Formats: sequence, structure tokens, C-alpha cells
Amino acid sequence: MANHPQGTQRAVKWYPPAYDIRVETIPIPEIIEPDDALVKIKLAGLCGSDLHIYRGHEDVDAELICGHELVGEIVALGSSFYPGATGRPELYSTLQIGDKVVSPFTVSCGECHFCRVGFTCRCIHSALLGTPLLPGGQAQYARIPKAGGTLFSLTALARSNARVLDIADSSLLLLADILPTGVFVALQALQHPKLSPMLTGSAYPSSSFVPCDGLVLSGTGVMKPLETADRTLTIAIVGLGPVGVCAAVSLLHMMENIRTTKGLDCRIVAIDPNEARRKKMEAVYAKINSHDKQSCAFVVAAIDEAQDLAKLWTGGAGCNAVLEVVGNNSALDLAYSLVRPFGIISSVGVHQEPPIPFTGRDVYNKNVSLDFGRCPVRAMFPLALEILVKRQDVFGGIGDDASLIENTVSFDQAAQSYELFDKGKCGKILFDPWM
Amino acid sequence: MANHPQGTQRAVKWYPPAYDIRVETIPIPEIIEPDDALVKIKLAGLCGSDLHIYRGHEDVDAELICGHELVGEIVALGSSFYPGATGRPELYSTLQIGDKVVSPFTVSCGECHFCRVGFTCRCIHSALLGTPLLPGGQAQYARIPKAGGTLFSLTALARSNARVLDIADSSLLLLADILPTGVFVALQALQHPKLSPMLTGSAYPSSSFVPCDGLVLSGTGVMKPLETADRTLTIAIVGLGPVGVCAAVSLLHMMENIRTTKGLDCRIVAIDPNEARRKKMEAVYAKINSHDKQSCAFVVAAIDEAQDLAKLWTGGAGCNAVLEVVGNNSALDLAYSLVRPFGIISSVGVHQEPPIPFTGRDVYNKNVSLDFGRCPVRAMFPLALEILVKRQDVFGGIGDDASLIENTVSFDQAAQSYELFDKGKCGKILFDPWM
Ligand SMILES: NC(=O)c1ccc[n+]([C@@H]2O[C@H](COP(=O)([O-])OP(=O)(O)OC[C@H]3O[C@@H](n4cnc5c(N)ncnc54)[C@H](O)[C@@H]3O)[C@@H](O)[C@H]2O)c1
Ligand SMILES: NC(=O)c1ccc[n+]([C@@H]2O[C@H](COP(=O)([O-])OP(=O)(O)OC[C@H]3O[C@@H](n4cnc5c(N)ncnc54)[C@H](O)[C@@H]3O)[C@@H](O)[C@H]2O)c1
Ligand SMILES: [Zn+2]
Ligand SMILES: [Zn+2]
Ligand SMILES: [Zn+2]
Ligand SMILES: [Zn+2]
Repeated sequence: MANHPQGTQRAVKWYPPAYDIRVETIPIPEIIEPDDALVKIKLAGLCGSDLHIYRGHEDVDAELICGHELVGEIVALGSSFYPGATGRPELYSTLQIGDKVVSPFTVSCGECHFCRVGFTCRCIHSALLGTPLLPGGQAQYARIPKAGGTLFSLTALARSNARVLDIADSSLLLLADILPTGVFVALQALQHPKLSPMLTGSAYPSSSFVPCDGLVLSGTGVMKPLETADRTLTIAIVGLGPVGVCAAVSLLHMMENIRTTKGLDCRIVAIDPNEARRKKMEAVYAKINSHDKQSCAFVVAAIDEAQDLAKLWTGGAGCNAVLEVVGNNSALDLAYSLVRPFGIISSVGVHQEPPIPFTGRDVYNKNVSLDFGRCPVRAMFPLALEILVKRQDVFGGIGDDASLIENTVSFDQAAQSYELFDKGKCGKILFDPWM
Repeated sequence: MANHPQGTQRAVKWYPPAYDIRVETIPIPEIIEPDDALVKIKLAGLCGSDLHIYRGHEDVDAELICGHELVGEIVALGSSFYPGATGRPELYSTLQIGDKVVSPFTVSCGECHFCRVGFTCRCIHSALLGTPLLPGGQAQYARIPKAGGTLFSLTALARSNARVLDIADSSLLLLADILPTGVFVALQALQHPKLSPMLTGSAYPSSSFVPCDGLVLSGTGVMKPLETADRTLTIAIVGLGPVGVCAAVSLLHMMENIRTTKGLDCRIVAIDPNEARRKKMEAVYAKINSHDKQSCAFVVAAIDEAQDLAKLWTGGAGCNAVLEVVGNNSALDLAYSLVRPFGIISSVGVHQEPPIPFTGRDVYNKNVSLDFGRCPVRAMFPLALEILVKRQDVFGGIGDDASLIENTVSFDQAAQSYELFDKGKCGKILFDPWM
């Protein structure tokens, strides 16, 4: 704790009620709790989710330090991390000063029931970075509570996998939120039991956890076996912001892997009303496809066009799954109109006060399954990192047609960047707090 | 087709707008399509779902023949079932005149995509018995379309499993709807990937369909492994009508089977505001438990009591899954209040016009998963039959404390039975059309 940096730092702050971003000089945070780490920030992301607060939609009435995406280096640790500390889980002995780390956008202790089972974003100690309760990452330093459970140490990982140290910081930053969230929304759909007939080739219900003594089907007249066409998955992605693009890349990655072993077919339609967003998605797909020829059909479309295509592809049945990556009711309505009976709507959009726009009859009549909520980033980390390493073509670049990050700027451009990003006039921006 | 019965029959009819039940003499239906069967009905059920029409809640403005639950005997078949018929799937050659059959409450062709994959209740030829489009089973005869895909032949099944012929008709009738629906609502919860950590003992996400090359977790500081307490499932059943009781019996059956191999623990709270319904559930559980000592804790409770118990059992976290077996928004609200973050609401209640009562923030904040809709009875048949055979103690009786069926009556008592059943003054009633 001797090397704890002292003095002041610069940070991006938001003031209520809305649209008020200021860069201020404030004290460097201190280690308060034994489980805290102090991280010197190398890069901090500006994210679509920051806009909910920026626009004043979150009922926040206190100023705050912005940002929930950060990559940095540990410069101080609380007493839990030092030899002799007792009662801390093993993961609290992994972190060391000097480690390069990524933080998920929420704190997770690594110890409670929710952490143990992998639902890390609903940790009983959960706190969201960049809120009045927990100062965010758009600063030079940030205090991270429950750091043993929260931070990913790339340095620790590199001991067994040296290649992770080759990943650019700007790519690593995507692990804080948007790539794991893309992984989660795709995985949630693919793992749903209602997709298992398509994935496995045997009819619903799958026999896992169906304790059935085999008394029956033989002799009762079984249904016709599945045909090739039954095993063609049709999946829509609604919303092609940075998270939607990550969802598309994740879904393509998973489908290539699943196809190798399972022999099923897949068609994806990626939807956004915004032309610039569609162009970005097309450029990303073109790059992926030029490096590794994809076996899924992949079409980027505006809303009307997508609805026609989904009907055409499926003979009117609709999509097996829809990934909702927007966060408003028009997107949920579109998802419902696209999904087929017994289909899945996997939603990661951050939804607000309005009631969700379905009647009881809607959901009953389509036998629809819906999965909502926040990404358990920490639990998605293995798969997200795998995709990140494999897809450096997409996640490595800055500022070209197919890169997810438009630019890295200094805090002097913070207010302007929020404004442009809010108006859809720029892509994802990273802040270098030392620039 | 020569032995096709001719003349008239008696049937229970409903007249709009509501509460108008009449027994009339009408023509015996004819075979119309080549895929039709004519069934001579032995028993027909009166069911909670009949009440939606009875009360005039379904916007039906034409008279109809009531009932969607029937067991009977095939007395005539269309040409598809005769030697030489071409283009029909194999299952159309299984049925024969004289076969004892149960019909699911919806028609399924057995051929289309939805049938092949097991989503039989959303067959493209789907039709619900007991609607203006398809005369129901509360009659002496019923025409069943797409009979090869729709009817279960107990006679065909008995060729390999003679013991199925020992099952009483009154028990078999439960296969038409309420037992498979109970199986479905339980299975839908237990198969959800968000329960897999509890069932398997390894953290979310399960590695099935997670193509991950093993690059990662080692070295990043893994979470604490699951503890025994993490593997205790807490499940609520909301609504203890006949379907809710079937859900409880199904869930207990599945848990006993899963526990044998997996070693997890389970606590169930079964909820109904109606005391008579709770008493029935308690008697059913007592009977099951006296025959086979159950390892799950099982408590029957009124709403407030259940909410307290769920909190107490789970330290405030809430239930891993809630089975909603009511069909109104107060039940969905209760389900939401009971479910824990990353929990599942599995709903088979028939919901109507009102919007479902959750805001976007509700569903996001709990990471809730919701599964809605109609039971694919035909696909649930194997497991339902297994439970039926095993649980003759519960499904075999009529009119005792622990039986699901209160009485078998003649059509002369139809109007009165609808009235009593509507007012909650009697349990499930069967009609014997020949009495
Ligand atoms: N669940 C989580 O853990 C998590 C994590 C990160 C982000 N999010 C949320 O995910 C959502 C997407 O994030 P982002 O950063 O990509 O947002 P973004 O605002 O940059 O992108 C949203 C895209 O949706 C498009 N869109 C709007 N209405 C649409 C409609 N009806 N149909 C199709 N597309 C439509 C917009 O044109 C835009 O391109 C946001 O709600 C964000 O808060 C959730
Ligand atoms: N999905 C399907 O395929 C399918 C099949 C059969 C029945 N159903 C539906 O399942 C539901 C149950 O059927 P049933 O025949 O058992 O109905 P039922 O009307 O006999 O029983 C419903 C029970 O719910 C109780 N209840 C009412 N509000 C409640 C609340 N807020 N909390 C807890 N309990 C509450 C009532 O007291 C009653 O005992 C109905 O909606 C029915 O239409 C669906
Ligand atoms: Zn973010
Ligand atoms: Zn925790
Ligand atoms: Zn019924
Ligand atoms: Zn069909």
C-alpha cells in the first residue's frame, strides 16, 4: 500500500439533469475496504449504455464520474490481497500490483451464491460502475471494490497463455461490456431447449433431464423424423449498435463451431433502421468472411426488408430466435413479429419504465420464450476472450470501415464526444486519460 | 367405412354470449377428409379451460359442441388409413378400427415442421377441439381430423407394453390435457439453462453448445466452486387447480428421478388462495408420500404464507423457478415477486387480452426468463404416460380426498356441472355420454 498514488487526477463527470459533461480535477481515490484495488486506467470506453444516464433517463439526481468500461493496471491493493489475509477465497490471492486488468461493468464478489453459480452480474454486492454509488472509469484512477472477484488479470492469465499479452488494449476494452454482452445474447438463444431439436436433430423435448423409462413412443405412432429443412436455424439480430455487431460476430463464431459437429444450417438477418450502422455491420461481415469463409447465410437489412426476408426464408413460419439488442419497445415489437411459434426472444437491451408491449394472448399464442437482463460479464469471459483472440481482424482495428472503435481521444474531447455519440454521428470512442 | 354409425347422437352445446349450456340431439358426424377418424366417446372431461368459453371470455359468437378432452374407440377411418393409401406418413398406418384412443386437445398432422420437431400444438393444421371450427368431445361421437398425427392408440402401444391396457379410462382421460400440461410446465423450468448450475453442479454457462477452446479460466482467478446450498432448488407452483396438481405430481416425479443421479436438493411450495384447492393438494401429496417417501420438502400454502416461506427458505433470494398455472395477471405478478434474479417463470396459464404486467425495468433487473404457451400434448405423452402408470394412487381414484376427478355424470347434469365447476363448487367432472 506504500506505492499508493497521491494527489489529484482528471475525470469526466456528468451533472443532472441531463447532457452536462464536465472534465474536473478531483482527488485520486483511496483504498477503503480490504477487498479494494486501485487501478490506473489506460483506456476507458464510451458506450451506448452511458447514454441512458447522459440523457437523464435513469432518474439519477446526483453528479457522478462517468464510464463503466476500463482497462488498466493495478497500482494498489487492500489488505485482503496480502500474504496472511484470512477468510478470502483463492481468487483474492491471484491479483498483484502491476497486473494488467479489465473490469466488467459491474462489481462481483466471487463468493456469494450468485457469483458461485455464474450469475455474476446479480452478485449480492453488485454495483454498477459510473453511478453515484460507484465512481466510473472515465478517470485516471478508479477504485474497484471486491477486486478479487471483479477484475480479470491478463497478467495472471498470461502465465499459462502468453498470447493474451499480444492483444491490444483497445481490444481488451471490449471485454468490459460489449463483447461479453454480444456473447451472452447469442448463447442465451442457442442454449434454449426450444432450439435443441434443430441443433441435435431429435424432437422436443430433449431427453436431458427427462427421466423417462422408455415405456412409450414405440408403438404409439411416432411423428415423422426431422428433415434437413427442420434443422435450418433462422436467427434475427435486432439492433446493430456496437453490442449488436458483437452479437453477430459471436453468433457467427458459435455457429461455425456448432456446425462442424452437428451439421445443421443457419441463416442470419441483422437489422437496423440506421444506414450507417448497417454499413458497419456489412464491413465487419465482409472482413470475417474474407478471412474465414462463413457457412451461414448472413444478410444485413432495414426493418421492412428484414420482415420480408424472414418470411421468405421460413415460408412464413418466422425466426427460431431473435436477439434484441436495442432496448426499446419498438424493438421488442419487431422481435415478436419476427419470431416463430416456440421461438425465443433473447434480449439484452436495457429496458426502462414502460410495460413490455405484449398481451397475454400474444405470448400464449406463439408459445414464446423470453430471456431478459444484464450480461454476467465475468461468466462470459472465457468465450468472449476466445472470440476476441480469434477475431483480431474485427476487434483489433481502430477507425477503419470494419472496426468497432472509431477513435481514441483525450478528456478534452469528452463533452463533444458524448454529444456526437448521442446523435449517432460517431461510433464507439475510447478515452486515453493520459493524452 | 361400411361400419360407420348412422343417425343421431346427444351432445353438450354452448350458446353465446355466455353461461348457456344445452344438451341436444344432433347428427353423428361423418368422415369428411381421408385423414379423419370417427371416435365413439367413452368419457369426456370438463376442464378449467372450458370455462374461458363458458364465461364468454373468448370472443366466440357462434354456438359450439363443448369439450376438448376425450377417450374413446375408433369406429371409422378415412381412406388414408386403408391399405394402398399413398403419401401418408407411417403413423397413418398404425391406427385401426377398434383401437382405444386418447385425443390431445389440439389436432396435429404429424407431418409438418412443427409436428416433426415436437411442437405439436402449433401444427400448421392446428385446431382446438370444442370451438366453432371443430366440434368437441362432450358428445357421443367426434370426428378427429389428421387422426394419424393426433390420436394416441393405447391398443397399438399395448402390443409392446401390455400393462397400459390396465389403466382406467378415467385416468387415461387425464392424458388429453391436464397431466401433459403439468409435465410441460415442470419440464420447461427444469430444462432451462439457467437451472443447469443447480442440476449439474457446474457454473453458468453450461458447456453444452459453448464452443470454447479452453484458453481461459485457469489463471484468471476462478470463482469459488458451487457449495451444497447452491444446489438446493426452490420452486413455487402458483395455482392448484387440476393442472396445478398435475404440475406438482410431475415435478415431484422428475425431482425424484433427477436426484437419484445428481444429488441435488429441492423444496417446493404449492400456492393457492382457495382452501379447498389447498386441501386437495395436501391429500394428493400425503398419498404420494405415504407410498414413496419423497425427498423434496413440499409445503402447501396460501399466498402471503408462501411469500414468507420462499424468503425464509432462500435467505431473501427468491425461487429458482415459478410454475404459473392460473392464467391471470395476479398470478404473473405473484410469480415475479417470488422469482429470484436469473430465475424462470414457466407459464401454462391461458392469458387473455390484458398486457402482461411487467415493465421493462422489472424483467431487466431480475434477468428473468419467461416461457409461455400451450402444451404440446403429443410430445409430452411419453413422460405423462410414465407418470400416469406410476402414480395410479393419485390418478386412479374418483371422488376420494386425493383424487383429481370428483365424479362421472351423465349429460343430463351438464348444465348444472358447468355451473358448479364455474363457481369452484366441484372438482373435475367427467361425462359418460352413454349414461
Ligand atoms: N444487458 C446488458 O448487460 C447490456 C450491456 C451493454 C449494453 N446493453 C444495452 O444494449 C443495447 C444496445 O447497446 P449499443 O451500445 O449497441 O446501443 P446503440 O444505441 O449504439 O445501438 C442501438 C441500435 O439499435 C437501432 N434501433 C433502434 N430501434 C430499432 C428497431 N426498432 N429495430 C432495429 N434496430 C433499432 C439503432 O439504430 C441503433 O443502431 C442498449 O440498450 C444498451 O444499453 C445491455
Ligand atoms: N397451456 C396449456 O396448454 C393449458 C392446458 C390446460 C389448461 N391450461 C390453463 O391452465 C390454467 C389452470 O387450469 P386449471 O384447470 O387448473 O384451472 P382452475 O381455474 O381450475 O385453477 C386455477 C387455480 O388458480 C387459483 N388462483 C387464482 N388466482 C391465483 C393467484 N393469484 N395465485 C395463486 N393461485 C391463484 C385458483 O384459486 C384456482 O384454484 C388455466 O388458465 C387453464 O386454461 C393451459
Ligand atoms: Zn458499456
Ligand atoms: Zn457475489
Ligand atoms: Zn382441458
Ligand atoms: Zn403438423
